[in-house]
Amino acid sequence: MHKIIFLIQCSDRKGLLAAISDYFYGQGYNILHCQQHSDTREMRYYMRLELDLKDLMTTRKVLQEEFGKFAAHLGLTWECHFTDYRNRVAILVSKTSHCLFDLLSRQHEGDLVCDIPLIISNHPDLEHIADQFRVPFYYLPITKETKLEQEAQIQTLLTKHNIDLVVLARYMQILTPQFTHAWRERVINIHHAFLPAFQGANPYLRAYERGVKMIGATAHYASEDLDQGPIIEQDVVRVNHELSPAGLKKIGKDVERQVLSRAVQAHLEHRIMVFNNRTIVFNAAY
Amino acid sequence: MHKIIFLIQCSDRKGLLAAISDYFYGQGYNILHCQQHSDTREMRYYMRLELDLKDLMTTRKVLQEEFGKFAAHLGLTWECHFTDYRNRVAILVSKTSHCLFDLLSRQHEGDLVCDIPLIISNHPDLEHIADQFRVPFYYLPITKETKLEQEAQIQTLLTKHNIDLVVLARYMQILTPQFTHAWRERVINIHHAFLPAFQGANPYLRAYERGVKMIGATAHYASEDLDQGPIIEQDVVRVNHELSPAGLKKIGKDVERQVLSRAVQAHLEHRIMVFNNRTIVFNAAY
Amino acid sequence: MHKIIFLIQCSDRKGLLAAISDYFYGQGYNILHCQQHSDTREMRYYMRLELDLKDLMTTRKVLQEEFGKFAAHLGLTWECHFTDYRNRVAILVSKTSHCLFDLLSRQHEGDLVCDIPLIISNHPDLEHIADQFRVPFYYLPITKETKLEQEAQIQTLLTKHNIDLVVLARYMQILTPQFTHAWRERVINIHHAFLPAFQGANPYLRAYERGVKMIGATAHYASEDLDQGPIIEQDVVRVNHELSPAGLKKIGKDVERQVLSRAVQAHLEHRIMVFNNRTIVFNAAY
Amino acid sequence: MHKIIFLIQCSDRKGLLAAISDYFYGQGYNILHCQQHSDTREMRYYMRLELDLKDLMTTRKVLQEEFGKFAAHLGLTWECHFTDYRNRVAILVSKTSHCLFDLLSRQHEGDLVCDIPLIISNHPDLEHIADQFRVPFYYLPITKETKLEQEAQIQTLLTKHNIDLVVLARYMQILTPQFTHAWRERVINIHHAFLPAFQGANPYLRAYERGVKMIGATAHYASEDLDQGPIIEQDVVRVNHELSPAGLKKIGKDVERQVLSRAVQAHLEHRIMVFNNRTIVFNAAY
Repeated sequence: MHKIIFLIQCSDRKGLLAAISDYFYGQGYNILHCQQHSDTREMRYYMRLELDLKDLMTTRKVLQEEFGKFAAHLGLTWECHFTDYRNRVAILVSKTSHCLFDLLSRQHEGDLVCDIPLIISNHPDLEHIADQFRVPFYYLPITKETKLEQEAQIQTLLTKHNIDLVVLARYMQILTPQFTHAWRERVINIHHAFLPAFQGANPYLRAYERGVKMIGATAHYASEDLDQGPIIEQDVVRVNHELSPAGLKKIGKDVERQVLSRAVQAHLEHRIMVFNNRTIVFNAAY
Repeated sequence: MHKIIFLIQCSDRKGLLAAISDYFYGQGYNILHCQQHSDTREMRYYMRLELDLKDLMTTRKVLQEEFGKFAAHLGLTWECHFTDYRNRVAILVSKTSHCLFDLLSRQHEGDLVCDIPLIISNHPDLEHIADQFRVPFYYLPITKETKLEQEAQIQTLLTKHNIDLVVLARYMQILTPQFTHAWRERVINIHHAFLPAFQGANPYLRAYERGVKMIGATAHYASEDLDQGPIIEQDVVRVNHELSPAGLKKIGKDVERQVLSRAVQAHLEHRIMVFNNRTIVFNAAY
Repeated sequence: MHKIIFLIQCSDRKGLLAAISDYFYGQGYNILHCQQHSDTREMRYYMRLELDLKDLMTTRKVLQEEFGKFAAHLGLTWECHFTDYRNRVAILVSKTSHCLFDLLSRQHEGDLVCDIPLIISNHPDLEHIADQFRVPFYYLPITKETKLEQEAQIQTLLTKHNIDLVVLARYMQILTPQFTHAWRERVINIHHAFLPAFQGANPYLRAYERGVKMIGATAHYASEDLDQGPIIEQDVVRVNHELSPAGLKKIGKDVERQVLSRAVQAHLEHRIMVFNNRTIVFNAAY
Repeated sequence: MHKIIFLIQCSDRKGLLAAISDYFYGQGYNILHCQQHSDTREMRYYMRLELDLKDLMTTRKVLQEEFGKFAAHLGLTWECHFTDYRNRVAILVSKTSHCLFDLLSRQHEGDLVCDIPLIISNHPDLEHIADQFRVPFYYLPITKETKLEQEAQIQTLLTKHNIDLVVLARYMQILTPQFTHAWRERVINIHHAFLPAFQGANPYLRAYERGVKMIGATAHYASEDLDQGPIIEQDVVRVNHELSPAGLKKIGKDVERQVLSRAVQAHLEHRIMVFNNRTIVFNAAY
């Protein structure tokens, strides 16, 4: 069953739920699922609506134009998605393969509903995995001098392939602010630590040295400031004194994998909204 | 800030959200929080609404009478609660104190918002804890012959004290079907295993013998069938070969405590709905 | 660094640790790691020793013969493994791919240290995944009439390929007692529920119907009795009313994957001992 | 059954296990339980031994003197504890009661085996809880001017009551380096965040602002540097956008309680060793 999904946010006030649900009811839509959040601190209202695509009696364009008028009237910020459209995802990697394997196999099994038209890497190491899954692999090496140029090449590829979402699956390069700004809320990164702990390089070694009893991973939208973007998902795993930094790294791979794939899945299912560098992530309801 | 909470359920159909939110909007209420669930298998709709009590312009009785008419028209099953009313909770115990301590201290700290006018036990052992917290303690011993009589005494005490909720905090007696029927969805029991595993007696010993790698606890509404009532909350903790049955029991106390208190809290916050022996437990949003 | 690993068990008594550690010290070995467990209920003693393979001054055969004499004297049950030997693992599957993908990619990444010379299935569906990872795939269909014959074919393949461990990665057939007996403690199965809850078929549907708040998975050695073998690893994930049986199944895949791979890894790292249908699983220490 | 517990550490080298286990075997002791850790990075060896107190054939003093000679010879750092001695614990609090309630009820139930001869606070608020549990309560107010004086009063009380361990159960004052130095590894503090994230004040508000998806708590030995001491135990709980800073604080109480009590329990059971600001915490085996 295909759906129309609306993500709506605005400053909170009386009657919003009634007004919006009335609007769709008046247009003949059945609201299959409605999730809301009222942030009483920020006085902000968030809503995610699932409508039955079969109820659509106009073109998609008309639906959006008309809702646009209604939304403008109420001061709503909104997006509209159709679940019969498969998002197009580019994966960027370096040398580490566990997240790449995980994303590709989940896509293959139908748990990540998307197309993956390309994998880009600054190293040639993982080309064989791309080959295994028959995804075109672009090796774009990078040096201090060619950084901007390489990023421009990435940008060209993304545009050419009509990419909707970029996943940094342990891509060990820092993107320029220009890039993250252009792709705001459309680049998901996995950091191998429980942010804000251990920002930056070598988090497992630093976790070992600090003697923490759990290690974690954090998926977030990439932003201008490294490791500072809106957090989408986090998880941890218990560790103990028996593990060396290498052991933590090994154990941590499982958390990284899961956290990244859950974040990508939430994005692809249009369950994430962002405001003030914080995310609202609505539950999956299958 | 005090609230009016509506719990509503009915068979699912188009327009319910619009109709209900319109109703309250039309009566001048601000919907502070609205949580819904559409069960597409059972074709059933569930809603929890929080309204601002300050918006109440009539008596509580009138509010309920009028909503009753509207609800009858739409075929809604509903309850209405006012958060300035403190639920009255009776705790039943036997000899084990950890859940009792936990409930009393949480109530004392204001995390469980309720009054606890009495503790009832079939053993005298925990009277000193009741004394510590200045809660009247009723020792009602039980033998095979006096079981029904003792239950009648409990019933009398509950009625006399206007009890809303009975918590079986490791009360090691099986209530009669008459009792659980009369108190349907108003008796919460903690079972010291991850149901449906290890129903009945000695779950820790059986968990040990089976060699499980996690032990758990389950809070559920008591029903006619032992350990079969609607599950409200469950949790587990990892264990290993180093723990004996006594060790599992010791470790398990923490899970029992937490699971029971979360279930009681969800009940007191009117976040639980029941249908077909399954619960809908809406998230806490503080 | 390669290691010699001894797994030793016997009835518990005074002086075992001193006797065994003396033995190896006397032979010029450095004990890199020693893990023990004394089961005071069963009066049984378990030990796992890691020695440095570089300290080996005799042949492997002589080491084992000599230790065998010492062990016979003390009444020890024991195994000896050399970590420079790569275990040979056969994976059996049916139609579901998530565990297969996971095992293959972990092996590829070097987290599961083993060779996987073949995949066997009673369905042809997953051949393309075997191809992807360049592992020979044997399609051995099964009917009521050919069950024993098919199992004999499996047995022949396992023998021919010198298989050490069989992993049932969602293989939806029940093995005969003859088979599980012959491969005692060398067949690992994943059951998609938190055993002993929901033994047998359709655990996710039954979990849904019972309304549990967590779902789990269990990896165990296959034994004559279905779902009754020694449990190696279990884990759970929190679920709620928003998930249908299909949703539980989807969410559950992640737990199945992890639980199975952790169990296989513990086996390959010689960290598991079995007594009386219960496992001792020593921690990984990397 | 009472036990003698040895905690031993030294630089790692061949034959330590054989030498130490031989020593005790030679003296006629049965080693009930032996836990070890070899840190190959630091080349350091850690051992925890449980002996049967009934095997003691000399005075305790002689046991320690003789082992002292043996240990000096091998260069071992060591402690010896007898489980029939109940540690004497002082609890320091300010205004928040949840950890205090938890510690007192666990002690009452026999899960924390210790005496609690006094509670000290810089505020009078929690005196009634001390009264409830019949523990003497010392109200020692503090101002900028009287800080050192108040700490001296605390020190006097601790000495007078022969205190072994100080638990800071949400004591909202920073102890002087003189104090933490004098009580090195004998003061356990609970920090209401997952260290090293959110060191310092107001961690829940900062966690909210950063939009983390889990909040945690950390128990550590207090050291000269605030929130930098050796971590004993940590845990986290999943949170989401529905929780305000006040909601996080409420939810976080459960984690604080558990983490602190587990750390205190590990200390009282002599399962913790410290080296280079990191802890080795051996598993409980009951």
